Amino acid sequence: MTSIAKPDAPEAAAWLDSSRRRCRGDVRAFVTDRVREYFTGRASEIPAVTVLPEFVAGGKLLRSMFAYTGWCCGGPESDAALRAAGNLELLHCFALAHDDVMDGSAWRRKQPALHVQFARWHEEHGLRGPAARFGESAAVLTGDMLLVWAERMLCESGLDTAAIARARPVYDMLRSELAVGQFCDLVNDARELPSWDDVLDVIRRKSGNYTVRRPLEFGAALAGCPQQVIDALGVYGGVLGEAFQFRDDLLGVFGDPAVTGKPAGDDLRERKATSVVVLAAEMADRRQRGELAGLLDLDVVDDAAIGRWRVLLAETGAPDQLEKYIDARVRRALEAIDLAGLPQRPAAALAVLAGRCTERVR
Amino acid sequence: MTSIAKPDAPEAAAWLDSSRRRCRGDVRAFVTDRVREYFTGRASEIPAVTVLPEFVAGGKLLRSMFAYTGWCCGGPESDAALRAAGNLELLHCFALAHDDVMDGSAWRRKQPALHVQFARWHEEHGLRGPAARFGESAAVLTGDMLLVWAERMLCESGLDTAAIARARPVYDMLRSELAVGQFCDLVNDARELPSWDDVLDVIRRKSGNYTVRRPLEFGAALAGCPQQVIDALGVYGGVLGEAFQFRDDLLGVFGDPAVTGKPAGDDLRERKATSVVVLAAEMADRRQRGELAGLLDLDVVDDAAIGRWRVLLAETGAPDQLEKYIDARVRRALEAIDLAGLPQRPAAALAVLAGRCTERVR
Repeated sequence: MTSIAKPDAPEAAAWLDSSRRRCRGDVRAFVTDRVREYFTGRASEIPAVTVLPEFVAGGKLLRSMFAYTGWCCGGPESDAALRAAGNLELLHCFALAHDDVMDGSAWRRKQPALHVQFARWHEEHGLRGPAARFGESAAVLTGDMLLVWAERMLCESGLDTAAIARARPVYDMLRSELAVGQFCDLVNDARELPSWDDVLDVIRRKSGNYTVRRPLEFGAALAGCPQQVIDALGVYGGVLGEAFQFRDDLLGVFGDPAVTGKPAGDDLRERKATSVVVLAAEMADRRQRGELAGLLDLDVVDDAAIGRWRVLLAETGAPDQLEKYIDARVRRALEAIDLAGLPQRPAAALAVLAGRCTERVR
Repeated sequence: MTSIAKPDAPEAAAWLDSSRRRCRGDVRAFVTDRVREYFTGRASEIPAVTVLPEFVAGGKLLRSMFAYTGWCCGGPESDAALRAAGNLELLHCFALAHDDVMDGSAWRRKQPALHVQFARWHEEHGLRGPAARFGESAAVLTGDMLLVWAERMLCESGLDTAAIARARPVYDMLRSELAVGQFCDLVNDARELPSWDDVLDVIRRKSGNYTVRRPLEFGAALAGCPQQVIDALGVYGGVLGEAFQFRDDLLGVFGDPAVTGKPAGDDLRERKATSVVVLAAEMADRRQRGELAGLLDLDVVDDAAIGRWRVLLAETGAPDQLEKYIDARVRRALEAIDLAGLPQRPAAALAVLAGRCTERVR
């Protein structure tokens, strides 16, 4: 593993943590205000009030931190910019709400997924009709609200109209890529085994761009950074986004549910054509390929099958190879930052974030 | 029925029709471009390419026409403003896509609903996994894309940033009210029989504001109309929106499926607490109340039950009363317009639109 610790890392880490704490507070307060504005006194007040502010404040705010760091590459520390960055967490929560419905995932951030919480509320209150369907509909609509509120949080951040107009193309790109990426993912079935290039393409469009590159470019555009800075951030974001997703895919197979907060092997159960599965298929020998075809063909992927999947994937060498890919990408990301001559604090923060994205255990 | 035909009505109707034709072309072209931008060459290209441009161009563009007429209360005819108005049709299509999934509606605009079209594509291509689930997920994501693209169509309409910034609060209000209204609707079950005031509240928040009032105010805000014009449009929009929904609710029960393009009695099947049902409950005598309770308590609402519903509703006098309510509201809407001293063309167009919203058969 490339060592990415630098002398100024502790200070940058502390700065990121304190920015994140403030941003989390902003996000929670904004949604609390919206719930009050739109739901007070209505029948639907109770589930919305209790659930939403905590739901939106429960994540790592990775995208907001990239956006704020991007801002700091060209602008001074600013409460308004931090609020503008916070909108990306609401946008992310929109995606999570819809994702969990579509994937039928029961857990999110160590809590029952939003649709599950709404379904429970429906049951506890003895409402008629199928509770699961109610939960899914409520979660889809909650996602819709969050997508709209995200943008409102941006527009009401306190940044001036010109700054927001400057960042709008990348903001729209980010949002479109997110929805389109999910759509492409739907028709992407592990049993059809896409090629490694296909997987990289989906990663770039979906998680990679969405998690690192576009948030950074968005923050930098808000601040009016010169094009060469945006380009350097684009290189860093592109390769680090891939590394982020490789780590995510490894955790999806080998992660500890007690730490990740998600059931073990969920990606395998859902037959996602993740980087680790596709790389394993490309690296497999004849016998392994046969075994892999057998696992892909199972109608039900139970715990025993997950165990066999893990052994097989490890045998192909794909996990080790992915670790090397992660390592190389982190190195290239850091080089891009070094060459760009960024201000000291955001440069150090980007090094810390590169570590957090790729060394994480959840 | 109040006669709303005026001497300048034919000219205004022709102007509305030609504006709508151009707007429909704009909407279709914008989505065709987005599909090309994001889907060309991907596995998901085929369903997206064939389905979306026609889907978004298949409606009456009522909200866009209100928005453009609102614009014309303060601005000159403008291709850019017409494109900005067109964004509301994309927003509407977002809502339809999600709505049909949540309601399990199989038909929309005389075509199979989007989720049904996607499910069929999934089946025809022999993809594995449940086709219905795929269709629903694809439709939810399509809705998400349309919500994002709607705003992009607004921002790229060619109107200047200041105009768009002026209209943003009402735009955000419109979008939030839409999602929140749907959410409130979810917990609104006919078997709990809300009061007439509750029904009016939901109508105002959901369909009324969303269909007439906010689009008008949005267009007027884009054009920078003075506050007294926006206020008059708000009055017109508020009462006409209610009348629109009353007509919609009557069509939902008594409409001809061959004309409406929706199965007869869908609202009754879904136990929606619509204006006609709630008003009937308030007007019912003792015997009718008993019969109504019996119908509300049915687990399955079949064609025979729909027939009994129709007879019962008519017996209570609720449909006739609603016709009177529609009439009175149209009259108040037209008065508000007469008093506001609007330019001749939008004033005449608003009178024509009042008729189209409330005399329609689909």
